[in-house]
Amino acid sequence: MDYEQISPLLGRLWSPLAAVTSQWEGQVNAQICMAISNASIVPQRPRVLVQIYKGNYSHDLIQGSGAFALNFLNKHQLDLLREFGFFSGRGRDKLAGIDYDTGVTGSPVLKDCWGYLECRVVNAMDGGDLTCFLADVVAGEVRMDGDPLGAREARRMIPPDWNEQWDRRLEENVEMSRKIMDHIDYTPWQP
Amino acid sequence: MDYEQISPLLGRLWSPLAAVTSQWEGQVNAQICMAISNASIVPQRPRVLVQIYKGNYSHDLIQGSGAFALNFLNKHQLDLLREFGFFSGRGRDKLAGIDYDTGVTGSPVLKDCWGYLECRVVNAMDGGDLTCFLADVVAGEVRMDGDPLGAREARRMIPPDWNEQWDRRLEENVEMSRKIMDHIDYTPWQP
Repeated sequence: MDYEQISPLLGRLWSPLAAVTSQWEGQVNAQICMAISNASIVPQRPRVLVQIYKGNYSHDLIQGSGAFALNFLNKHQLDLLREFGFFSGRGRDKLAGIDYDTGVTGSPVLKDCWGYLECRVVNAMDGGDLTCFLADVVAGEVRMDGDPLGAREARRMIPPDWNEQWDRRLEENVEMSRKIMDHIDYTPWQP
Repeated sequence: MDYEQISPLLGRLWSPLAAVTSQWEGQVNAQICMAISNASIVPQRPRVLVQIYKGNYSHDLIQGSGAFALNFLNKHQLDLLREFGFFSGRGRDKLAGIDYDTGVTGSPVLKDCWGYLECRVVNAMDGGDLTCFLADVVAGEVRMDGDPLGAREARRMIPPDWNEQWDRRLEENVEMSRKIMDHIDYTPWQP
């Protein structure tokens, strides 16, 4: 299989960019995620499916609290994409100086965002390098018109050195994920 | 929480429309799905996360075979959206008269589509009314330029009576899912 052949298709299977915020035992963090799916057709029971990499500090907080918020970015929040997405939250308070409320789940909710969803985990699946969290949406609001920020658009809007930083961060993450995936001995899935 | 407030956000967390095809013990089927996520950043190990409703005939086939194909529709395939999406495959051969090849996983691969991915399930998570399948992408190709068909675009392109048929089918599915979700006694998730 030629990856270049399918990469335009796989690239269309990402969601808009969200700052995933979480809080556990007084520690808060924010990271960027674009692997978010709607997971319910029932209006009374909205749900989402969110992938979080095991190496991320946010993974520890979400595992601990069973909750998180998805803060979808607007087109003027490229600085947050960089601050939340290009660095680890270990040993760095990424939310210092950021205006936020504490939501019903205890997760930080950014005052400035396109819209947000607060979520409580109901199930989780091991995905090797990542965990797939299925979560009830328990609060939320859309705060702006138009569309939230997507990765392809952000790539075009940020300066060249940010794009290089993004690429380096992605390369590190790919390398970490590849090592984990190469060392897992998958037995064929059984129904 | 006011669902109307968050529904524009949740509506942006669907993927493009794919005909999910599957084959088990000689039986084939196709259904429409728009809950598909990219689930890997490692080019050597492409993966997707796909939600399939338990009541669907395709769920039986995918559970049995551990495989499926995602055939993303192009803008001229509104007839397939109707044929695959508005009816159940139980007692109806939805692929009769459709031109397809049998892929490496045994799943039907539509000759005419925007692009396809053939997938083998590596893990699955119970989501109440649905199952979340995590799958390796083992083959695939993009066959057209431009973008695959999305639900919002399809809604605008199909005639009014098709939209009504779509609404009725969706209402039936929502009702079925709501009943399942109301009767599951969820214990709080534990890490």
